[in-house]
Order: sequence, then structure tokens, then C-alpha cells
Amino acid sequence: MSTLCLVLAAGAGHGEQARILAALSFVLVGAKLFGALVERLGQPSVLGELLFGVILGNLALLGGPSLTPLEASETFAVLAELGAILLLFEVGLESTPREMMAVGVPATLVAVVGVVTPMALGYGVDQLFHPGTSWMSHAFVGAMLAATSVGITARVLQEAKASRSTSSRIILGAAVIDDVLGLVVLAIISGVIQAAGEGTTLEPMGVAVIVAKALFFLAGAIAVGSSLSPVVFRRALALQSRGIVLALSLGLCFGLAWLALQAGLAPIVGAFAAGLVLEDVHFEGHVKRGETPLHESLHPLTALLVPVFFVRMGMLVHVENFAKPGVIGFAAVLTVGAMIGKWACGLVVPRSVSGITVGLGMMPRGEVGLIFAGIGAALILAGEPVVTPETYAAAVFMVVITTMATPPALLWSLRRDAARVSRRGAAASGRADSA
Amino acid sequence: MSTLCLVLAAGAGHGEQARILAALSFVLVGAKLFGALVERLGQPSVLGELLFGVILGNLALLGGPSLTPLEASETFAVLAELGAILLLFEVGLESTPREMMAVGVPATLVAVVGVVTPMALGYGVDQLFHPGTSWMSHAFVGAMLAATSVGITARVLQEAKASRSTSSRIILGAAVIDDVLGLVVLAIISGVIQAAGEGTTLEPMGVAVIVAKALFFLAGAIAVGSSLSPVVFRRALALQSRGIVLALSLGLCFGLAWLALQAGLAPIVGAFAAGLVLEDVHFEGHVKRGETPLHESLHPLTALLVPVFFVRMGMLVHVENFAKPGVIGFAAVLTVGAMIGKWACGLVVPRSVSGITVGLGMMPRGEVGLIFAGIGAALILAGEPVVTPETYAAAVFMVVITTMATPPALLWSLRRDAARVSRRGAAASGRADSA
Repeated sequence: MSTLCLVLAAGAGHGEQARILAALSFVLVGAKLFGALVERLGQPSVLGELLFGVILGNLALLGGPSLTPLEASETFAVLAELGAILLLFEVGLESTPREMMAVGVPATLVAVVGVVTPMALGYGVDQLFHPGTSWMSHAFVGAMLAATSVGITARVLQEAKASRSTSSRIILGAAVIDDVLGLVVLAIISGVIQAAGEGTTLEPMGVAVIVAKALFFLAGAIAVGSSLSPVVFRRALALQSRGIVLALSLGLCFGLAWLALQAGLAPIVGAFAAGLVLEDVHFEGHVKRGETPLHESLHPLTALLVPVFFVRMGMLVHVENFAKPGVIGFAAVLTVGAMIGKWACGLVVPRSVSGITVGLGMMPRGEVGLIFAGIGAALILAGEPVVTPETYAAAVFMVVITTMATPPALLWSLRRDAARVSRRGAAASGRADSA
Repeated sequence: MSTLCLVLAAGAGHGEQARILAALSFVLVGAKLFGALVERLGQPSVLGELLFGVILGNLALLGGPSLTPLEASETFAVLAELGAILLLFEVGLESTPREMMAVGVPATLVAVVGVVTPMALGYGVDQLFHPGTSWMSHAFVGAMLAATSVGITARVLQEAKASRSTSSRIILGAAVIDDVLGLVVLAIISGVIQAAGEGTTLEPMGVAVIVAKALFFLAGAIAVGSSLSPVVFRRALALQSRGIVLALSLGLCFGLAWLALQAGLAPIVGAFAAGLVLEDVHFEGHVKRGETPLHESLHPLTALLVPVFFVRMGMLVHVENFAKPGVIGFAAVLTVGAMIGKWACGLVVPRSVSGITVGLGMMPRGEVGLIFAGIGAALILAGEPVVTPETYAAAVFMVVITTMATPPALLWSLRRDAARVSRRGAAASGRADSA
């Protein structure tokens, strides 16, 4: 154990390069061991990676060194984000724009319910616990609960080999729409609060611009991408160079992630769109010539970077923040509201789809919730921050619990769905036999 | 609009994240296109990547935007370094410690000649051009020429599928020993200069500690690694998790790279040692169970990160620095000395090996030379920096020319060797037929 601490502490003491090398070495091996351990307990390995991260992030409580320099490292944060981007790209590859369009209506419905219900519940909980503050604060707390963090869900669906099912597509589509809606809600509420602070009212034009940019990006990326990429890959056949498929595909993935960021969206939305746009048919000529198929060459990249993302998410959980007496009650009730708010999505899915799976898949909140909370902490209303330190700690608690609870709960529901399908199949073939 | 800015600003390190995404997208596609282009001209693709980098780094001269923020980005530098580390790891995998031991004597000889000759030539050239300065300055300029930068050579050997040949092993082994020797030389000369500045003489203990650390690391990493890794991989069979081979191997690679850095060596030396230590036999059980062989899963990682390294190396070349009249003559003669100094290595190789290939393979200088120059620029002797701005520009010129000249020259020599071998083979089979 002491060697471990030495390695970590020394890494943290030197330059950025040394820190990253030590961190990567440690995170890769540790995440794999913890992942294998929880897999043996029938849980998805992402839960093990999160747990390993929580332990690393709270080593100081166990008498170990503090890893604050690593947590604060911009490079480590970017590597983690690249992991999330590649994960959503990989998940996006498993569907086509047409398949996503087919679930457009239920996905939009799920997204709307999944934004409105948690907002209403968050508003109510904050009103209950902090009756003295403005309605705008309540609304802001509600907004913190709106955006699903699809990374966890995508990973569990992938591990359970369920990413191509209708319920998975509804969840993934709803999460993308969700991101746009969350951005709009945040823009409106922050705008109202800022205007109130300045004694004016909100300019509707500002909000309209934000919404237009986001929608224009999504529709544009998918339309232009789908029509251009077959041409580009066919032209690229003229280049006799190896590795052209991977280079062009990653170029598209990182390029759209960057564009999404420019449009005010999360970069993973862009990466997912890139994945949707690309289809195996585009590379057929290349693969025939001996190129590795994209999903195979993508795998080692996600194997390296995705654990960095989940371990880092775990590291950001600081256990001591929840020990304060004023926080825990509010945090617990807020978290229950956040969960129920997303489960409500399950009520509006088509009959052929498991509402429980969709509700659980929409449950996790992640960075977006924390970014909202951070913005609220910087907004001042009547001399007080809109998001107090207490509320901020509660938001972190909500993110942690919804994140950690999703992998086991969702896996349980997916297995239940699979069992039901095979039972139905057996019954159907039984009927066929007797007929 | 202000709200949107707020949202954008709230993402931690948002600027850096956007910069890296845009850079990765651009660098991947550009490097691939330029690489394919020069391949068509019969040159190794690494030359195309370097050229693309030079263009990017000098865009401002062509009326384009300045990419200074990207050049200065710590994250981009770390990603590039990870590329170099993975490349040397991959090259190390192609040999075993035993195979490297077999070339131990010639490699050591090559390394010693490759350090002593360029140092002597550098000393002479500096004395010729700057007769007024101290012998210590001349010695420092000589030291700047000592260390081979093996990344370029490794990549060309790999592209020419020649990494397993005896001459390649001599080059790679010599480059590792070279790194240790260069470190020792730097320690001694800086020590002498510092002592002279303080009016004392050099403490031999300090140098001894540096040397001991470096040797201890190299011998220790290889000895402990070779005996432990078969055990670890066999034990790991008990974990039923996918991807265990890649996780453990990368953990070793990054771990030894980190340790090398702690021992004062370049991280690529550690990565190369990690590659030597690992052998396909260790993973046999895993591969039988359906794991991807290590060299296959490593390939996409190097495809993503290695071009980042070479493009960044190209970007660091600022063409305008060489235009100064006082610089170019000194720079040209120094560069010729640097080249001849390493070609001298070819005179001491065994008769069965091509001296020209070894001499050309040892030729490129890289970051280590620039790091030396940077240290010299900070050392003050008699009120003047040991490495003046003019000498620094000449060092950069030397690095650029030796780097850019190596790929075509080395590839030419490798092809010549191959032709000779096949001619000899034909002659031998001709003799066999007539016998």
C-alpha cells in the first residue's frame, strides 16, 4: 500500500507529463482489476471503475496522499473527455440516422417528460426545504435535474450488448434532445435571473439564437455528414495509404465534437452524431483491401481512454462533503426527486418497449448537472448566490447516487427484458408447435 | 448571448478542450493526406507528417492564423509525448532482452563513437566560429550534438518492416545507451560550468549519483520486468475480463516511462524497455481465449497519437529564425559536423552489418538536443549565456535538418541493403543449383 502511495504522490509532485504517465499506468490497471472484480459479482464493469475512482479521490481520508493535482490537471480532464467522446462515437456507430428517426417521436416525448418532471419535482423540493428564497432559485434547482448524462447508460447498454434495441435507441435519442432542452432551460432561467438582477426583463432574442444554433448544428451535422461521408470515403480509396478509414473517421468524430462545443452543446452530442452518420457500407471498399473495420480499430482507443473518464468521474466525488447535517436530508429528497422525475419517462414509451428500462436509462446525471450548479453558484440574486454551497453539495450527491445506482439497476432491467423476450419466444414457438 | 458565454466559460478548461478537439481532427486528417502524398513519391509517410507540421507551424508567414496557443498547449505536448512513448513501446515489442543483449557490444561501441565524435566536431566548429569564448562553451555545444533522437529512425524502420534486423537492433540499442551517455555528459559539463561560476570545482559524487540512477533504472526495469511479467500475465488469466492484456501492457509501458523520467532519462527509454520485456508467449493463454494480440490492439493507438508527435515536431520549426545572416553559416557547418559525427558510427559496426544504415539511423537529433540547448541558454558563464540566441537558432537548424534528412536517406539505405541481400541470396541459390 505504501508503494502505491509513493508512486501516486511522487507523480503528483512532478511535472504534468510525469503526473499523466503515473496516472495512466495506475488508472488502466486499477480500473481493469476493479472492473473484473465487480463483473464477477454480476455488475457492469463501469461500476468498478467508478468505485476505483471514488477510492482514489478520497485516498486522503484513508491516510493516503491527496490527488488534488491530478484532479485539477487540465490534461487529465481532456483525456477523460476524449474517452467520453470516443464512447459516444462508438455507440453512435451502432445506429444509423434512419434508425434514430424511426424513434424520433417517442424519443422526443421521453426527452420532454424527462426534462419537465424532474424540473417540477426539483422546484417543489427546493420550495419545501428553502421556503424563504425566490421562485427563480427553485426553478434553477429544478433545471439542475434536467439533463441526462448518457455516458453511463451508453456503457451499460454496450456491455449488455443491447445498444441496438428500440429502447436503447429511444434512450440515446432522448438524451441528445435532452441536452438541447437542458441548454434552452438553462439559458432562459439564467437570463431571467440576470435580468431580474439588473432590474430588466429577459431578451427573447438571446434565447432564440441559442436554440437556433443548437438545432442548426444537430440537423446540419447529420444532413451534411450523411451525404458527404460516402463520397469522401469512396474518393479516399485513391489514396493507397493504410489506416485511412480510422484517420478520416476520427477526424469527423473530433471535428463534430468541436463543432458541437462551438454551438454550445456537449461535445459528446457531436461525437454521437458523427457515429450515426458513418456506416459500414462507406468503408466496404477499404475493408476489402485489407483495412481493419472501424469498430475493431476503435476498440483499443476506448479501452485506453474510457476508463480514464469513469475513474475521473469517481475521483470528483468527495465523501466528506455529504457529512454535513444540513445537507444530507435535502440531498436525499432532491435525489429521490431526480430519480422519480426520470422514471416518469417510462410512462410515455410505446407499448412494445420496457418503460422501466427507459426510465432507468435516463436516470444518471453527470457533468452537465454540475456545470449548471457551478453557473448557479456564480449567479447572484438579492445578494445571495442562487445555488448555495449547501445546494451545491446536494447537487453533487444527486449526481453521485443517480450515477452509481444506474449500472446495477439498468443491467437488472435489461436482463429482465431479455428473459421476457425469450419466454415470449418460447411460448410463441410452443403455440406454433401445437398448431 | 451573455448567457451562452457563461455556459461556455463554465466548462472546466473549455478553451483547451476545444483547441485539442480541433487540433486532433485537423492533425489526423492532414497528417494522413500528407503521409499518403509523400508515400506516393516513394518517401516514408513520417516525412509528410513532419512537413504538414512545418506548414502548420508557419501558417502566419503564409498569411494564415498563428497556432502559438496550440504549440504552447501542455495537453497537446503530453498527447504528442504519449505518441512517442507508444511508438517506442511498439518498436521494443519487436525484440526481446536476449536479442538486444546479443548486439550489446556493437551497440555500445556505436553509442560511444556516436557521442564522442559529434562532441569533438561540435567543439571544433564552435571554436572556429566563436574563438573568443571559453572551452566550456565549446564543450557544451559539442554535448548538444550527442544524443540521437530515435523516434524518427524507429518509425522509418517500422515502415520499411526492418525493425527486427541486426542493424536495426544495433541502432535501437545504441540510441538507448546514447541517452544514458548524453545524460552523463550533460551532468558533467553543466556541473563544471556551474562550479566555475561559483569559483569551485565539480563534485564527483553528484555525477556518480546521476549515472547510478540511470543504470540502476535500465538494468532494474529489464531484470524485474522480464521475470515478473510472465507470472503476472499467467495470474491474470484468472480474471475473466476482456481487454486485460492491453490494460496490463499499457500499464507497464506508462509505468516504466514514468520511472525513466524519475531516473532522469527520457520517458521513451522506459517505454522501449517495457516493450523489450513483454513477449508474445506471455499472452498466449489470453489470445487462445479470444483476446486480440497486443500488436494488433496497439496499432490504432499509435495511429491516433504518433502523427500528433511528428506533426508537433514539425510545428516547432520556425522558419524565420534561420533567415538571420549571422546564424546560417555557423548553423550549416554545425549541422554537417552533427551528421558526420554520427556517420562515424558506421565505421565500428560488425562486418555483416551495413555501416551506412547504422550511421544514417543514428543521425536524427530531436528534443533532447533542444533540451540541452535550453539548459545551456540558462547557464551563465562570465556574464554571458553558455548557449547564445545565435547558437540556439543553430541548434534548432541542426535538429530540423538531421530530422528531415533521415527518413529519405535511411529508407534509401534500407532498400539498398535489401537489394544486396536478395542479390546475394540469388547468387547463393545459383551456386546451390550448379552444385
